[in-house]
This record gives sequence, C-alpha cells and structure tokens, in this order.
Amino acid sequence: MVTSTTLTTAEQAEKAFYAAFEKSDPAAMMEVWAEDGNIMCIHPNGPRLVGQQEVREGWQQIMKYSPSMRFELTHLDRVESDDLAVHYVNEHIYVGKQKDPDFTVLATNVYRRTAQGWRMIMHHASPTPESLRSMQDRLQEEAQQDEVTLH
Amino acid sequence: MVTSTTLTTAEQAEKAFYAAFEKSDPAAMMEVWAEDGNIMCIHPNGPRLVGQQEVREGWQQIMKYSPSMRFELTHLDRVESDDLAVHYVNEHIYVGKQKDPDFTVLATNVYRRTAQGWRMIMHHASPTPESLRSMQDRLQEEAQQDEVTLH
Repeated sequence: MVTSTTLTTAEQAEKAFYAAFEKSDPAAMMEVWAEDGNIMCIHPNGPRLVGQQEVREGWQQIMKYSPSMRFELTHLDRVESDDLAVHYVNEHIYVGKQKDPDFTVLATNVYRRTAQGWRMIMHHASPTPESLRSMQDRLQEEAQQDEVTLH
Repeated sequence: MVTSTTLTTAEQAEKAFYAAFEKSDPAAMMEVWAEDGNIMCIHPNGPRLVGQQEVREGWQQIMKYSPSMRFELTHLDRVESDDLAVHYVNEHIYVGKQKDPDFTVLATNVYRRTAQGWRMIMHHASPTPESLRSMQDRLQEEAQQDEVTLH
C-alpha cells in the first residue's frame, strides 16, 4: 500500500522526486506530483505530457526501460514565492556503475503548495548538446547491433 | 536609443518577448529580461545560458543566423502567484512565408515582478520529437549541400 507523505517544502518535494527516479518507483514518483489535472512533464527529447494519466504513463515507460541510474544534482538557482517555487537543476546522470556521468540533463522543476503539501506541477528536461549527441550515438549503435543480430 | 517600457503584467512581458523574437531585435529582447544577474535561457538543443552576458549573446547569435520567423502560440496553462508567473507555451514557428508551421517548440517561460515591472527570468525551450528530427534532417541536408558545393 502506498502511504502519502506530506511534503512541507519544495526542497522536500524535489528530494522525493529524485529518490523515486533513482528507485525507479512510479508509485512513489506520482506521490510527488500534484493531484489536480494541470500537471505537465517534458522528458529529454520528448513531447509535452499533460495531466495525471499521461504523466504517470510517461514515468512507467521510462522506468520500465531505463537502466539503473544515479543522479548527482547541481542546483543552480531557486526562485520562490509564497506558494510557487521554480528550481533550476543540472542532473548529472550515472548509468550502472560508471564513475563519470553518462549524461547531463538541464531541468526546470516547478512546485506548488497544495492542500496536500508541496507538490511538483511541472518538470521540463532537455539534454545538453553534448548529451544529445551522445544519446543519439548510442541509439544508432544499438540500431546497428540489432541489424547485425537480425542478419 | 532604447527606451525601457514598464511591463505591468506577465502577459505583457510575454507579448513583448515574442514580438522582439519575431522582429529579430536583440535590444528589444533584452528589455524584456530582468536586469539582475540570475536570468537563464535554454534554447532548443542548447546549453544553459546564465546571466545577462550569456543570455544576450545567445539571442544575438540566434537572431543573426535565423531566417524570418512568425510565431503562433498555444498557451497551455499559466501558474501565477503574487510576484512569480510560469507560462507553458507551445510555439508553432513559421519560417519565411510557409503556410504550415515548420517547427513546434515547447517552452516554459518564467516571469517575475521586479522594481522595473514584470520581466522574464527564465526561458526553457525544447523541440517536439517530430521537430527535433526535422531540424536534424535539415542540418544534414545543408551539410550535404555544402559538401557538394565544395567539390
């Protein structure tokens, strides 16, 4: 059973967000998000996902296919008002047991104070130019390997 | 001479932002941004630009090399508090005199009420998956044409 935790600051919500991401736990992930319909999520190179169902399915898909990941975060800035917070985060992502980060993703995370505590309402992520090239090289390699396997 | 205009709402700041973008006017563009150092800008497939100088140079470079563009905007949502506003915008970009949009860019725009009125403090833009493919196909075609020209 999933028990909701009240997140009392935007920082707590952000911590819970990356913890759920590292654990590949879609249920824990969705507990970080606001329960109302106006949530949005843009994964690197992805479309805009709107509302509970699309956002949930997006995370389920990512967590199903992603390898084990570890995040090192650089918080560049936080802009906060009474009930709204925008965090700018560089996500240095380590895949498997790599010593150096495999990808760096630039994220804008928006949190809102709701009746259920602070919750994420928006996540906009895009790869750095270097990581975009690296992601595409990997996809191309995988496609070539698949082709070799097929022949 | 550039005369600063006081933008009294986040909507006005957003209107001025896209007007400056369509006019390819870097000075008008920078008037929309907050004057303090904590501004950030991520262009499609681009790095994180931080502070007045990087943000200004980013716009100068984009406006120098971009063709004439027209924007059709779909505002998906706005989340606002007293002095902070986050707008989610789909930018349908028409290049030259095309009838159909050439690219769609997903943007998160953050505005803040400052002593100089409402100003942009963050612009995070990423292409839709279809537009990313289309942009890369164009670059590849251009590279091939350059190669043909060189031989």
